[in-house]
Amino acid sequence: MEDPLSGDLTSPATRTSSGLDTAVYDESVGIVDLVEAALTDFFASKRALVGALGGGYADAVDDLVAFVLRGGKRVRPAFAWTAWLGAGGDRRGPDAPAVLRACASLELIQACALIHDDIIDASVTRRGFPTVHVGFAERHRAQAWSGSASRFGESAAILLGDLALCWADDMMRDAGLDAPVSAGISPVWSAMRTEVLGGQLLDIEGEAGRDESVEAAMRVNRYKTAAYTVERPLQLGAVMAGAPDGLVESYRSFGTDIGVAFQLRDDLLGVFGDPAVTGKPSGDDIREGKRTVLMAVGMQRADQSRPDLAQLLRTTLGSEDLDEEQVHTIRTALTDLGAVDDVERRITELTERALATLASSDVESTAASRLRDMAVAATQRTY
Amino acid sequence: MEDPLSGDLTSPATRTSSGLDTAVYDESVGIVDLVEAALTDFFASKRALVGALGGGYADAVDDLVAFVLRGGKRVRPAFAWTAWLGAGGDRRGPDAPAVLRACASLELIQACALIHDDIIDASVTRRGFPTVHVGFAERHRAQAWSGSASRFGESAAILLGDLALCWADDMMRDAGLDAPVSAGISPVWSAMRTEVLGGQLLDIEGEAGRDESVEAAMRVNRYKTAAYTVERPLQLGAVMAGAPDGLVESYRSFGTDIGVAFQLRDDLLGVFGDPAVTGKPSGDDIREGKRTVLMAVGMQRADQSRPDLAQLLRTTLGSEDLDEEQVHTIRTALTDLGAVDDVERRITELTERALATLASSDVESTAASRLRDMAVAATQRTY
Repeated sequence: MEDPLSGDLTSPATRTSSGLDTAVYDESVGIVDLVEAALTDFFASKRALVGALGGGYADAVDDLVAFVLRGGKRVRPAFAWTAWLGAGGDRRGPDAPAVLRACASLELIQACALIHDDIIDASVTRRGFPTVHVGFAERHRAQAWSGSASRFGESAAILLGDLALCWADDMMRDAGLDAPVSAGISPVWSAMRTEVLGGQLLDIEGEAGRDESVEAAMRVNRYKTAAYTVERPLQLGAVMAGAPDGLVESYRSFGTDIGVAFQLRDDLLGVFGDPAVTGKPSGDDIREGKRTVLMAVGMQRADQSRPDLAQLLRTTLGSEDLDEEQVHTIRTALTDLGAVDDVERRITELTERALATLASSDVESTAASRLRDMAVAATQRTY
Repeated sequence: MEDPLSGDLTSPATRTSSGLDTAVYDESVGIVDLVEAALTDFFASKRALVGALGGGYADAVDDLVAFVLRGGKRVRPAFAWTAWLGAGGDRRGPDAPAVLRACASLELIQACALIHDDIIDASVTRRGFPTVHVGFAERHRAQAWSGSASRFGESAAILLGDLALCWADDMMRDAGLDAPVSAGISPVWSAMRTEVLGGQLLDIEGEAGRDESVEAAMRVNRYKTAAYTVERPLQLGAVMAGAPDGLVESYRSFGTDIGVAFQLRDDLLGVFGDPAVTGKPSGDDIREGKRTVLMAVGMQRADQSRPDLAQLLRTTLGSEDLDEEQVHTIRTALTDLGAVDDVERRITELTERALATLASSDVESTAASRLRDMAVAATQRTY
């Protein structure tokens, strides 16, 4: 594997420039490339410290670096960055590189969330590669080490996830923001992390406790997804731009609605998505026993009118050996019960309300147009 | 269980005072009570945010709070606080409460380290209580939830450890330190966490890979224990006091030596400790297959002169079903090989060098005397 910490440390997009600052000021460079360049710079800044420990630490960290740089759509930095621009942030101004680094640090929180989530969900692949814990278990097996390979893999992944979480803070703290700006975003940064971890805890508790309420599923959507993915990143961007309270509130309201709608779309795709498009097995959410709003609404409706379907949903949810035909039966049941229409209606209402909030806000027009596109893409996607 | 987040939020030691500030200025209140008071205040500050999520989040967080407040000797805050005093910090001065909060935040990193380590080591009890993952598994069983109780327990403990790590940052960031002081400690804080996670990774890799070198064992001692427990906390305290470089270097040198010596003592106790005093089963380190300096030296010496004992050490290390007699045989072997004397000599040399460094430093005399006591206690203890 190529050593991502060695050699040319700038991303392809910025390779010809003299660094991150130049890339930021080059309007042809998109946010995905900017985030990658910022992360690459950050990882380079850690290289001496990691190397000083010796042993296999640098190799393990290389795996983390490769995982983070491998991709993703950089959704959270993109929301934060666009919100900053939309609240008067100037990409050609002196603050832009620091703001970019602060936005990019969200990807390190996300790295921890994904690495630890993959342990929790016992996921085997992520972005077409083995998950981090599986990768380390494979390394253990390849070297014929002693003890359990899978336990070793999980242990290493717990520690690397922790490192990503620490580094998120380091990157944010060292971003170069002015002190008053840092002070302003501190409670937002703090709330976002306490919320996402709470959302994840409530998620696993709901699954274990078979919580069937729409309320519980909505709570997980709100904190595990909406606050963490859209609302708080937008708020971070707005506060970094020194936005007035009214504008911050517009962003948060827009973000919460879009974030929840995004998750509701995800719930539908988890049952009805085309595996060829989503990249996940059909009906995966059912096998995993996810307590989604879609399922909660389906059960609630079935209890009122179709006890046979209520029984069907309860017995199949979380059953790992569902075949294609059973998945088809559940799809038909959810459709017939009106649960699909119900969720689609919620998505439409949330999206319309969010777009109305955005339209009546003071968000600068180019950024607003970009946010509108992102909102539509997030809630109407098929993948 | 009593709700640690409700009711009277001050610790017994400060209950009659009007808050943390008063406690800090009361010289009769020791560091353990001060740290508890600071942590209690901090947890109270998170209550509204956690409560806003609803569901079972507040209950889960109560478990984390109880775990943190349950105790420990607050070693890291004590080193940091004492170093601050020894570098001219004034307990009666205006900065004292902020410095105390910064020192206390080290306990939240430690909470994450312990919670995640207990998952990694599959430990069942900690400080006389079930470990966090075992506690959550028991809750899962008690409620007859679905899925694997042990997996649920580990998942919840991963997330609560993450929360402790995030909260450590929150507590440090919100401690109230002046901006230049915050900027000064930032690289220390950052290095400490990158080091301890590296030390832990190297530790599990050494165990899995059966690394027999003294060098590898010393590396783990250096980063997993010495840097994290003594050196970096002392440095944090010194930098918070604005200590000159020479004094900071004295503290670091003293801390590294004492920290390594502390771990070497721990290694001896892990094999020779009296279970009635250590609270751990006799010979626990051998069953767990820990790659300690003691074992590495023993193997190295056995390879040179006693192949039969080399064979014995290699076959027993990591074997979970050792009986009392086998443990006794290993003890005798390590003693006969001179490995025990070797490690005792290292401890003596490190401690003497550390005390000499301290004696020739500019550390204020009361604090220096306290540090000397802590150093002796850490390296000559029997528990």
